[in-house]
Amino acid sequence: MGSGSGTEQKWVYSFGGGAAEGDAGLRNLLGGKGANLAEMAGLGLPVPPGFTITTEVCTAYYENGRKLPDDLNHQVIAALENVGQVVGAKFGDIENPLLVSVRSGARASMPGMMDTILNLGLNDETVAGLARRAGDERFAYDSYRRFIQMYSDVVLGVDHGVFEDILDGHKNFAGAMSDTELGADDWKEICDAYQEAVESELGSPFPQDITAQLWGAIGAVFGSWETARAKTYRRLHDIPDWWGTAVNVQAMVFGNLGETSATGVAFTRNPSTGAKEIYGEFLVNAQGEDVVAGIRTPQPLTEAARAEAGETAPSLEALMPDTFAELVAVFDRLEERYRDMQDIEFTIQDGKLWMLQTRSGKRTTNAALKIAVDMAAEEVITRDEAVMRVDPAGLDQLLHPTLAPGAVKQVMATGLPASPGAAIGQIVFSSDDAEQLRNQGKSVVLVRIETSPEDIHGMNAAAGILTTRGGMTSHAAVVARGMGRPCVSGAGSLRIDYAAETMTTGGETFRKGDVITIDGATGEVLKGAVEMHQPELSGDFGTLMGWADAARRLGVRTNADTPRDAEQARQFGAEGIGLCRTEHMFFDEDRILAMREMICAEDEAGRRAALAQILPFQRQDFHDLFRIMAGLPVTIRLLDPPLHEFLPQGDEEIAAVAAALDISVNRLRERVSELHEFNPMLGFRGCRLAVSYPEIAEMQARAIFEAANLAAKETGAPVMPEIMVPLVAYRREFDVVANVIRQTAVAVEAESGTALTFEIGTMVELPRAALRAEEIAAGDEGAAFFSFGTNDLTQTCLGLSRDDAAPILNSYLAQQIFEVDPFVSLDRDGVGELVRIGFERGRTAKPGLKVGICGEHGGDPASVTFCHDVGLDYVSCSPYRVPVARLAAAQAAIAAKLGDGDTKD
Amino acid sequence: MGSGSGTEQKWVYSFGGGAAEGDAGLRNLLGGKGANLAEMAGLGLPVPPGFTITTEVCTAYYENGRKLPDDLNHQVIAALENVGQVVGAKFGDIENPLLVSVRSGARASMPGMMDTILNLGLNDETVAGLARRAGDERFAYDSYRRFIQMYSDVVLGVDHGVFEDILDGHKNFAGAMSDTELGADDWKEICDAYQEAVESELGSPFPQDITAQLWGAIGAVFGSWETARAKTYRRLHDIPDWWGTAVNVQAMVFGNLGETSATGVAFTRNPSTGAKEIYGEFLVNAQGEDVVAGIRTPQPLTEAARAEAGETAPSLEALMPDTFAELVAVFDRLEERYRDMQDIEFTIQDGKLWMLQTRSGKRTTNAALKIAVDMAAEEVITRDEAVMRVDPAGLDQLLHPTLAPGAVKQVMATGLPASPGAAIGQIVFSSDDAEQLRNQGKSVVLVRIETSPEDIHGMNAAAGILTTRGGMTSHAAVVARGMGRPCVSGAGSLRIDYAAETMTTGGETFRKGDVITIDGATGEVLKGAVEMHQPELSGDFGTLMGWADAARRLGVRTNADTPRDAEQARQFGAEGIGLCRTEHMFFDEDRILAMREMICAEDEAGRRAALAQILPFQRQDFHDLFRIMAGLPVTIRLLDPPLHEFLPQGDEEIAAVAAALDISVNRLRERVSELHEFNPMLGFRGCRLAVSYPEIAEMQARAIFEAANLAAKETGAPVMPEIMVPLVAYRREFDVVANVIRQTAVAVEAESGTALTFEIGTMVELPRAALRAEEIAAGDEGAAFFSFGTNDLTQTCLGLSRDDAAPILNSYLAQQIFEVDPFVSLDRDGVGELVRIGFERGRTAKPGLKVGICGEHGGDPASVTFCHDVGLDYVSCSPYRVPVARLAAAQAAIAAKLGDGDTKD
Repeated sequence: MGSGSGTEQKWVYSFGGGAAEGDAGLRNLLGGKGANLAEMAGLGLPVPPGFTITTEVCTAYYENGRKLPDDLNHQVIAALENVGQVVGAKFGDIENPLLVSVRSGARASMPGMMDTILNLGLNDETVAGLARRAGDERFAYDSYRRFIQMYSDVVLGVDHGVFEDILDGHKNFAGAMSDTELGADDWKEICDAYQEAVESELGSPFPQDITAQLWGAIGAVFGSWETARAKTYRRLHDIPDWWGTAVNVQAMVFGNLGETSATGVAFTRNPSTGAKEIYGEFLVNAQGEDVVAGIRTPQPLTEAARAEAGETAPSLEALMPDTFAELVAVFDRLEERYRDMQDIEFTIQDGKLWMLQTRSGKRTTNAALKIAVDMAAEEVITRDEAVMRVDPAGLDQLLHPTLAPGAVKQVMATGLPASPGAAIGQIVFSSDDAEQLRNQGKSVVLVRIETSPEDIHGMNAAAGILTTRGGMTSHAAVVARGMGRPCVSGAGSLRIDYAAETMTTGGETFRKGDVITIDGATGEVLKGAVEMHQPELSGDFGTLMGWADAARRLGVRTNADTPRDAEQARQFGAEGIGLCRTEHMFFDEDRILAMREMICAEDEAGRRAALAQILPFQRQDFHDLFRIMAGLPVTIRLLDPPLHEFLPQGDEEIAAVAAALDISVNRLRERVSELHEFNPMLGFRGCRLAVSYPEIAEMQARAIFEAANLAAKETGAPVMPEIMVPLVAYRREFDVVANVIRQTAVAVEAESGTALTFEIGTMVELPRAALRAEEIAAGDEGAAFFSFGTNDLTQTCLGLSRDDAAPILNSYLAQQIFEVDPFVSLDRDGVGELVRIGFERGRTAKPGLKVGICGEHGGDPASVTFCHDVGLDYVSCSPYRVPVARLAAAQAAIAAKLGDGDTKD
Repeated sequence: MGSGSGTEQKWVYSFGGGAAEGDAGLRNLLGGKGANLAEMAGLGLPVPPGFTITTEVCTAYYENGRKLPDDLNHQVIAALENVGQVVGAKFGDIENPLLVSVRSGARASMPGMMDTILNLGLNDETVAGLARRAGDERFAYDSYRRFIQMYSDVVLGVDHGVFEDILDGHKNFAGAMSDTELGADDWKEICDAYQEAVESELGSPFPQDITAQLWGAIGAVFGSWETARAKTYRRLHDIPDWWGTAVNVQAMVFGNLGETSATGVAFTRNPSTGAKEIYGEFLVNAQGEDVVAGIRTPQPLTEAARAEAGETAPSLEALMPDTFAELVAVFDRLEERYRDMQDIEFTIQDGKLWMLQTRSGKRTTNAALKIAVDMAAEEVITRDEAVMRVDPAGLDQLLHPTLAPGAVKQVMATGLPASPGAAIGQIVFSSDDAEQLRNQGKSVVLVRIETSPEDIHGMNAAAGILTTRGGMTSHAAVVARGMGRPCVSGAGSLRIDYAAETMTTGGETFRKGDVITIDGATGEVLKGAVEMHQPELSGDFGTLMGWADAARRLGVRTNADTPRDAEQARQFGAEGIGLCRTEHMFFDEDRILAMREMICAEDEAGRRAALAQILPFQRQDFHDLFRIMAGLPVTIRLLDPPLHEFLPQGDEEIAAVAAALDISVNRLRERVSELHEFNPMLGFRGCRLAVSYPEIAEMQARAIFEAANLAAKETGAPVMPEIMVPLVAYRREFDVVANVIRQTAVAVEAESGTALTFEIGTMVELPRAALRAEEIAAGDEGAAFFSFGTNDLTQTCLGLSRDDAAPILNSYLAQQIFEVDPFVSLDRDGVGELVRIGFERGRTAKPGLKVGICGEHGGDPASVTFCHDVGLDYVSCSPYRVPVARLAAAQAAIAAKLGDGDTKD
């Protein structure tokens, strides 16, 4: 780093006394807290004077082997003297000691960092001066003991239990029930006992040198940047190590100087509902920490809130009307300045208001929606800004029932939060039972070790799904998210005994029919029925989504296989179906037998006979979807999974199926074994099925075309199906299957006398397809559209099976090889480059090529942003993710318009 | 196409009479046969006059909807008149008819195309003129019946059986045993009968209009370009459709005009041995087709050959010494001109020699070697040209024992030719039996449904391997090729009963101990012991390989895991080990238990204890390899396969192993189930093992370093191991494992007091690694070398599991989606682009980056050429493929030097 000796680098920024060297724009340099303190000071708001040591010092500290810059010392001393002058006190002065707080402050709020040390500047001598000056010995020694405890804990690493034991012992001895019953002498004794305990713990006395205290505290803040907790938090929130933290040193003000003093926290609007009302609480004669400690019950700020809560203790509005009015004025000033709801800390010392912190307040998604819409109505922010204010990921919580806040919970196990929402139901261990009980009007939770495609009907029938194996992207998780069913996956501590129909954990056994609750938002599995909260899609939701739709360029479609999904998705604003997986349709009980007959057929004639049985079902499926989507585009993917997924596995099941198919058990077993694959993901599936058995594609194409004719007649709206050939790697594969489809179209046209309009495209889900995109899209007979299947593209690009990834993911996230699960958020560097290559090459061959994405990533906000940036036409995601994608798409468009105001880089 | 009306396009090129309009350089325009006829005519050799209709006519024909160009007609008529003038006859002249042959002639010889029509120009009238003119009625009508039959079959599509029936009937009636007993009247009657038969088959008479005959024949040649057989051949030999074929029309000469006439075929050198001696045969008084028809026994050309064969019939040398001398002079002239061994057809009419064809002759690999080396010694060709003359793929047949030519064979089944060479042995059905019998000095063939890594010891012990499942790249095939063991895979008609230790096919049962022979070159499985031919690596082989080594730029290393492989590879000229797969070492009986203990260990301490048992074995493995490679580079790949491959599967085996490991059966079963994967290829393997269990990489690194120290001390040559981290997708993965290796090096250096030199690199086998190559190679701590693992790269790029590919490959090759099995020859467009991207990006980060390829493709000539073209440093292949790769690398370098003289484009 090193500034030359001539112009020294500025490491320290002062604020207070009606002026400041920095402002809110210097967030990267001063951290969030420091920048906001400077901003408030600059606005002339009452901020205790202080200074900020910049984030550059933190960076220099680590680059220099944990050594602070040499020229920092005198800058800090000078700033400290300045603070003393403003408040009329002096650091270390025995008669009139200046006390300061030391706080960390990174760019983004960061739990896991050292937070706060208060009352620094006290020692055995200055405490006496403070007592004299304040005329309150009890206050002085109470402050001192707080400082000793806090400093010893945070800076010196002494376990805080040591101090609690001493305090409890003293109270016992003094016969006191609470701290307030203790007097000055008690606190003096406790201070002594604290110091003795520190010395006995550490082998050296508690530091009486206040300058050493100050540097100790500053060092502790910088040191806490690299604690495991802080690092983990940064990794989870994508915060780079080099950002560093700032340190804020600020003159103490005291809310505990008697009945005209107080301390409190407030939001400028209600962070839970978003209502425009002051929201917060305060305590008379207390320090900030007391408000959150929960020993005394804080009082509401406003009369309205007091009345509503039925509180008897007076509100601040009633108790100190002038100060309250001043506070309200400050709130207005801050909202006007920051153009957002603020989260504020304040202290009143002897009737004088001091602002200690302001920042944009965290809020529920509901509140975020209301605040954004209100502020746009107030013309404080634009509609685009309103759209940017709501976290798309949070929308999920709006759309599902959730556990009621504060509900009583008995957690029996915890798994992964695989699909959001909560569900209550009776336990069942098989999909058939799930269906049966649902048909009896009961709500069930389907409990399986893991699910397979044969469980689709059970998952559909269940209110929620619980598995003991599998990750966030296991079959259960993916299907559940797609269906909008709450799901907890991989709850490994549960032991399932299918034969006994029991589930055991911690020595307790649950039987089929017992009621449990699962919380897909937290992964918790709970005993009994826990109170639920039903979603309300408020008018603000609709308003904001409307603004989002106006702002976005990306289309948003849905992945939907059933009428139910399709209807749900349209309610959520889907603009078409981007992926209809036709195989899910084959697992229904009335079809799977025909499917199995097809698979076991000895020849094409046998296959055709079986397919003829399936045709009417498929036609009906498509007919329903076309009717529901009423002219919106519908992309239908031809049969994709390996055939063995449709065959039975266990001996009993094989026997039953063989009997139903009227073939020998041996023949069926042989077929199962023939179709067995080592790596089914890389096996006989996708268009490979249609290349070998063109009659399957022919039946599906016929079902699509006939359904399109029916739906068009019924609705009067023309249907333009997009038929998608899966797993293409070679242009010739595409041609072979496309020819079958085109020939079928000619046949259906001849039979019906109606001209068909349709497009044939491909799912780009193999690296080769992306690389050869130009060839695959070339010419009139080339692919008319691409849909990136980023699930499979991730599997092949990374060489990582989604179904087997769980143990690898854990280790890779822990070792920071993955910043985020690549099946949840698109790997931009690898998979993303293939998407980019495929997109660019496809468009080179065919400038009008329609390009979308239909992997699970289509509902992940970061991935949606990526899709916008690349230039895709649309994303497609599961129904419950449609609003998320709409909002994320809008934010991507607005961010791009603003030149990407991403503060992270 | 269309030339303007001013300058007409030249469609026809004449030759003969001591001059020609074309020459050998116009092969693309005139086809091979036409160009060579023109060349010979231009040289003044006795070529019957004629003309060639160019390949451009063929192209125009198909572009014009199978219509010949308008202006072709008069060019053909003019050329035909010219032929008549040279020979002094006239097409269609009743007194002196000109007869012609019509033959196809593409750029490359192409079976499946219409071949030849002889004697065209005959009808009921001209045949009489021919009889008068030749003074031989029998000859004339024999010629006519041959023409009718040939034309009807080839042009008119009449089944040739029709004619055979008539001829047999007539001979029966005439009481004749052979054609020679039939006289002129017989042939006349037969000609009439033939014409009647044609009329009754087709409903129209045989064409008497000789011009119609000519155009019919020309059209038939062009039409045959698009027959299924021709298309298949072109696909298999990578011949583009637009090449087209030429048509040659040539005056007939007759070898069947009596005892001074003859016809024959000859090679200018011995095509079997390569010896410089005239090789061929002839028949007196015969037409060309008689020589190959096998009705009469041809006589040798030379006295030497006659004597050697113990023939009594005279040689041409003895029978017609002058003509023979003329023929020998022609041979010399042609070899001088073409600078290659020629394959020739000639006819002697009334003592006069006529040359009908010359072309470079097909030869065995042994002959190719000898001819190339001899011709370079004769200074007819350069050493580089000699290198270009030998097909690398053919070398394989030199290096393995093969079935003796002409050996008596009883084929019991046919599978895929998975690994070349032949093997005789007793059948065994388990790897343990294989080892036991081998130890008793017996030769065995290991017969399995499919092999697994646990069969390595049995495959090593066996003389050959036979499986009933799996393709060319199944486990059995890949390992067998690597070991140099003959292998037939996927012989699906065999039914194996392990319990009974029998193998059944076609109702016949073979038992353990029965002797069979397998031919890995053809895929045949044969009863009993078939006569074998042992390989001799002649001096010519060594000489030519020396020239190849001088010419090539690419290094050639070997994939070798055992001392035996390493020694074999060095004998074959390997310049180091490019891939040592360390896992094969773990399957040995004395190690697998420790490996299993490691896998089942509860914690790191347990794993370390088990690894400590494996360490001495690994050290010894590496020590042996380092000693054998004596300073040549050795690339060692860290443990790669998923751990479940090491665990037992069946109940009995699990019980035995659990007992040996002293753990409960349940615990072992649990571990097996924990490690089960849906897609092991995309699972917990490669560097993912080392990231989770760094102690494995640590043990392997230690074994490598300690072995390097031992070998260096022993041989005095420094060892520089290249340690390869497999399956890297992320730079961070590489760093994590590389750090373990570097820390281990520091520890070993401290213990040994010896400084180590080594490099750490990675196997690029995932698309993401290729895309992120720049990041992975960046900086001093980045990868020092790349080795493309094109097996896995193909699997992931194409989304195709090698183990499951067999049924897909069959269908894809048949439908021309794959031109060639992408696991055999690198897919240049897809996988190749990833290789190119990885290479370029890696070199961008690190200009000196060492880059090779170690997939199976390293031994495939086309893939080697690709590696040369991309600019890689080396290829690595299985030992028996090393000479193939050396030669292919040399050819790639020479071709590049010549500006790629590939005639195919």
